[in-house]
Amino acid sequence: MNSFGQKFRFTTFGESHGIALGCIVDGVPAGLKIDLDFIQAQMDKRKPGKSEFETKRSEADTIEIQSGVFEGVSTGTPISMVLYNKNQKSRDYTNIKDVFRPAHADFTYFYKYGIRDYRGGGRSSARETSARVASGAIAQLMLNQFGIKVQSGISQIHTIKSKNLDFDYAPSSAIFALDKEMEDAQKNAILEAKNNHDSVGGVVTLKISNVPVGLGEPIYDKLDAKLADAMMSINAVKGVEIGDAIDGVELMGSQNNDQIRKDGFTTNHSGGILGGISNGEDIVMKIYFKPTPSIFKEQQTIDIYNEELDFKLHGRHDPCVAPRGSVVVNAMASLVIADMMLLNMGAKMEHLNKIYT
Amino acid sequence: MNSFGQKFRFTTFGESHGIALGCIVDGVPAGLKIDLDFIQAQMDKRKPGKSEFETKRSEADTIEIQSGVFEGVSTGTPISMVLYNKNQKSRDYTNIKDVFRPAHADFTYFYKYGIRDYRGGGRSSARETSARVASGAIAQLMLNQFGIKVQSGISQIHTIKSKNLDFDYAPSSAIFALDKEMEDAQKNAILEAKNNHDSVGGVVTLKISNVPVGLGEPIYDKLDAKLADAMMSINAVKGVEIGDAIDGVELMGSQNNDQIRKDGFTTNHSGGILGGISNGEDIVMKIYFKPTPSIFKEQQTIDIYNEELDFKLHGRHDPCVAPRGSVVVNAMASLVIADMMLLNMGAKMEHLNKIYT
Amino acid sequence: MNSFGQKFRFTTFGESHGIALGCIVDGVPAGLKIDLDFIQAQMDKRKPGKSEFETKRSEADTIEIQSGVFEGVSTGTPISMVLYNKNQKSRDYTNIKDVFRPAHADFTYFYKYGIRDYRGGGRSSARETSARVASGAIAQLMLNQFGIKVQSGISQIHTIKSKNLDFDYAPSSAIFALDKEMEDAQKNAILEAKNNHDSVGGVVTLKISNVPVGLGEPIYDKLDAKLADAMMSINAVKGVEIGDAIDGVELMGSQNNDQIRKDGFTTNHSGGILGGISNGEDIVMKIYFKPTPSIFKEQQTIDIYNEELDFKLHGRHDPCVAPRGSVVVNAMASLVIADMMLLNMGAKMEHLNKIYT
Amino acid sequence: MNSFGQKFRFTTFGESHGIALGCIVDGVPAGLKIDLDFIQAQMDKRKPGKSEFETKRSEADTIEIQSGVFEGVSTGTPISMVLYNKNQKSRDYTNIKDVFRPAHADFTYFYKYGIRDYRGGGRSSARETSARVASGAIAQLMLNQFGIKVQSGISQIHTIKSKNLDFDYAPSSAIFALDKEMEDAQKNAILEAKNNHDSVGGVVTLKISNVPVGLGEPIYDKLDAKLADAMMSINAVKGVEIGDAIDGVELMGSQNNDQIRKDGFTTNHSGGILGGISNGEDIVMKIYFKPTPSIFKEQQTIDIYNEELDFKLHGRHDPCVAPRGSVVVNAMASLVIADMMLLNMGAKMEHLNKIYT
Repeated sequence: MNSFGQKFRFTTFGESHGIALGCIVDGVPAGLKIDLDFIQAQMDKRKPGKSEFETKRSEADTIEIQSGVFEGVSTGTPISMVLYNKNQKSRDYTNIKDVFRPAHADFTYFYKYGIRDYRGGGRSSARETSARVASGAIAQLMLNQFGIKVQSGISQIHTIKSKNLDFDYAPSSAIFALDKEMEDAQKNAILEAKNNHDSVGGVVTLKISNVPVGLGEPIYDKLDAKLADAMMSINAVKGVEIGDAIDGVELMGSQNNDQIRKDGFTTNHSGGILGGISNGEDIVMKIYFKPTPSIFKEQQTIDIYNEELDFKLHGRHDPCVAPRGSVVVNAMASLVIADMMLLNMGAKMEHLNKIYT
Repeated sequence: MNSFGQKFRFTTFGESHGIALGCIVDGVPAGLKIDLDFIQAQMDKRKPGKSEFETKRSEADTIEIQSGVFEGVSTGTPISMVLYNKNQKSRDYTNIKDVFRPAHADFTYFYKYGIRDYRGGGRSSARETSARVASGAIAQLMLNQFGIKVQSGISQIHTIKSKNLDFDYAPSSAIFALDKEMEDAQKNAILEAKNNHDSVGGVVTLKISNVPVGLGEPIYDKLDAKLADAMMSINAVKGVEIGDAIDGVELMGSQNNDQIRKDGFTTNHSGGILGGISNGEDIVMKIYFKPTPSIFKEQQTIDIYNEELDFKLHGRHDPCVAPRGSVVVNAMASLVIADMMLLNMGAKMEHLNKIYT
Repeated sequence: MNSFGQKFRFTTFGESHGIALGCIVDGVPAGLKIDLDFIQAQMDKRKPGKSEFETKRSEADTIEIQSGVFEGVSTGTPISMVLYNKNQKSRDYTNIKDVFRPAHADFTYFYKYGIRDYRGGGRSSARETSARVASGAIAQLMLNQFGIKVQSGISQIHTIKSKNLDFDYAPSSAIFALDKEMEDAQKNAILEAKNNHDSVGGVVTLKISNVPVGLGEPIYDKLDAKLADAMMSINAVKGVEIGDAIDGVELMGSQNNDQIRKDGFTTNHSGGILGGISNGEDIVMKIYFKPTPSIFKEQQTIDIYNEELDFKLHGRHDPCVAPRGSVVVNAMASLVIADMMLLNMGAKMEHLNKIYT
Repeated sequence: MNSFGQKFRFTTFGESHGIALGCIVDGVPAGLKIDLDFIQAQMDKRKPGKSEFETKRSEADTIEIQSGVFEGVSTGTPISMVLYNKNQKSRDYTNIKDVFRPAHADFTYFYKYGIRDYRGGGRSSARETSARVASGAIAQLMLNQFGIKVQSGISQIHTIKSKNLDFDYAPSSAIFALDKEMEDAQKNAILEAKNNHDSVGGVVTLKISNVPVGLGEPIYDKLDAKLADAMMSINAVKGVEIGDAIDGVELMGSQNNDQIRKDGFTTNHSGGILGGISNGEDIVMKIYFKPTPSIFKEQQTIDIYNEELDFKLHGRHDPCVAPRGSVVVNAMASLVIADMMLLNMGAKMEHLNKIYT
């Protein structure tokens, strides 16, 4: 339930206002150099409070490795990583203690479990994604050994769509914008929502390059199905699309089929996946984030006694979760690819011959 | 790899032109009346050759139960079901034996496994979905006991979108159209593609009603993530959307948040799922099918020797896979809900008290 | 629940008196020659009615492969195998319909599931092990490629222990005896029990030679733990022992520790497994089978209405299950080793380098 | 690999000389009172240095809960627990750095992973079992709610067998002896080995009382198979036995079959499990521990360069691991039963009716 992946498998724990959050990453091949600076750099990309487009809440997000690494190298045993919730503001949660915030998980957790840690969203808080980023960084270190590049950024904020997707530009943008031309308009859309005590949605586009042919396990662990599963598990994500899925509905087969030549596919409508297996082209995926549920306008809701009330939330929240979400998308994609690389080993006798003879 | 689900778990086998296809459904609670007519009726909905909108290929699709049912009732042991490939035309596959059909899984299976059953797509054929429909029918029988209703149909063909979604109408439509008004235009779009030796894409909308609150296991077995996983595993599906995921990007939080009143949610932008857990509203989902890869126009491709060639496919194929796909969507949705019902048992001590004291 | 293994994974179905029994073997590497004669030969070893030491019940046990093999070679897709229950005697089960046979699973199945297929033990019948032997034969074919040899036979019947274990002799013995000297005494013990309408227990010893170093996944998928799990799942097995586990309790560490020299270990008290990982020595294991529960003497029991009765079973049963059990031990051991070989791939970066660079 | 259980599932991490060890326990039902004192009390039973029969190495073993508990009650989210390695002696490991200690996992870890944390056994150290005891304590808290009692103790040390098994006496014995009469002789056997710089083996007997009928999932998650799996994963365990498995081999069926009367079974040769499912009688199991591999006599071994050497270990180790092992046996048994209770939910429609209608 709190684990993801089959061979490269991570398990996360922690609530937003508990003692700590963290993860155990199991199945990391031994002999991988574990660069703590690289991991911390990924954590820093996700951490809030870096700009006016994000919540002002400041979290240190300093990662500590507790096991599985010896003299800087993975040993094949589980890697535990932990983040302490040091800097948390000792807030008063009386006003939301018994209230279900609209569009949040409050209502469903309460009725599923009969009990709920109401402080800052508890387990359902996006702060849980910090553990994914730490796990994803380990995966990324492994992918780096094979030249596999996982990149992502913002391709839409509210109605403002990016036209040109420049994955090398995104890291330098405060909102991880893929299109420098549209960046200001996208930033303005976020600030406008913020100033109106409201929020906006956004779209992240993911690109994975240099993927080996053959990743993905049909029929029920297809690469696209696992990517969809991974992305849908991210807070606020409600839709996913591989290649040109949505626009492709309006195409004819003769337009949508990618023709094949000696040196590769002539187009990439399929987003790099055919029959659930990578074909060597870039894997391209769009991930749709809903507007942040936390807004500061009055809303109608009920409490745990089923009493109706008008409710206004206070606190600090991202007016748009997609930008920081793109860092989580990167992490989850890296984890899926790492897992699929391990799962693919043994697909044919040729693999076994390489290792056992 | 060929199994889906954790407690209500099915495993499928079979190639389109092998001896048989089938499934083992494990974890079916004992004491469920297994209505073979109901199961066969679901098979018949999916089977090809029923109208001019489908491939003319006729498959008997008669299901046989081999185990797990005693005197008409499930015993808690695995239910095996099998379909024999009796009626298959003894075709000559020489022309596609060594060729990778564009947009098919031929290329990726060949490079992943080093060998490929080229007859009719082998394992990657949509014929595999017949085993899902059989498994799904068992799940549906279980859901029926609790009044849970799983319905689906066509909400778009090529550019023709349905406006009014009538889930009770769909079963009577040859293309499972949800909107009677748009049905003819949608049918025409299919026929036009067919006459042009081409194909079109489509969208299926799924609705699940009367779902208990509390289904879905955060963080990594969220209900929406498992539905996405299930749908993405269906042939030709490349995109999925829960509730108003895609349009919701262009809304403000204040517009997209579903307010809560005593008697339920005032809107359902979330598609019945909050924090990965069902909230009791209808679960609504859109599933995007790409145009059928099999078209009868000349295309550019390569063969297994990496030689380029111009290639024209012959045979019988659905000009649009979405209509029959909607039957598979229904099956997969039923299987996910059944599995989530079993997984949810034990979420709180109250459940254990009901069973063990 | 009805599946075993993680990457090399099989799922079985079927009741002793249903239409068919069978299995789906998933995760078989593509490119393995599937020798149907070899598989049938394993089936024939397990099949009953071959001698006076076994039940007279004759079962054809002819295996049919339905998928996953193309032109005699595995394709990487699931291999389905089926056995039809053709030859079954249309018996009258009235006398056991409502009665719990002592030491059988009747009582526990009835109370767990609330319903029970009482014909011949239903799912809990040892006939289910035929599906394991079929699955195990596929595993064995894979192991054969790497010179790994799985052998087993009888090392004790009732109080008659074998002294000399000759694994090459066992296949030629009607009871798979490992010690030709003790064979007659062991046979006599079986016949004596049979003539007294009673039954006896026995011990199977398993030897696996030429195992690669490094198989087994600590901490919770240790090779010995998985072997124990596999063996304990066999009908009538109640105890397992790796190496000299039981006698070893009475040794000092200085006696039990296997010293290491350049060319290997000087002794093998550990049974080839250290820390849950194979060390390259022979894996040696003893498996303890209880006396067959089916005897033809009067016994005390109750029925499903909780009424006490004296009960006498009729029918045909092995007076000792260990000999045919040794064929199942072989199959399960082969399946565990095959699975562990696949799981071990990816243990170190060196493995990934061999496949992805 | 480092997880155990399916629904009540724990994952451990940590090396004996790393920063910390710990576990994540997933699937704990919400609403369970988490008594930290109870958990710590279990930890204290396992911790070394309590008497002359154990290693003098002193470990604080103070457990800290980091998540999943809110106001003293489980919330249904993962419970993380951690133990810091504060008190570790900064030893010099130069002498064992490159040497494979006989009967240890050094050799196998090195060849499996190509790298090894040699400090104190690293991951293969018995210190890992502290995380199992913490996890098991949570399981035990759940079982306590249903009156299920898990008890264990020493039934044999070297050749000294207990005659009378008094499970209520064991907790008060420094070696968890089950038989007060034999206790001194068993203690002497340990001390004698210790004084000789040697070690001895031992046997733990486990009894689980008041188990609900119906636990265990045939065919491949049988209760006995899962218990065997769990016990075999414990360091130094090489054999397991359910009920009278080993002595039962020498019985006739008529002697070994447990007769059934209205008020239960007249004997319990089966150890409370029939067909892999609990029958309501006490579950009885014997677990065989080999002599501690760490002895202080000269032994023959090789190093990582394959050079032979004579080697003498220094340090502090238990002369017999069985006594403290019995605490781990208790923990693992509790975890298996808790998992099986959750897995059993949904075995029949009656269960679903209780929860969903």
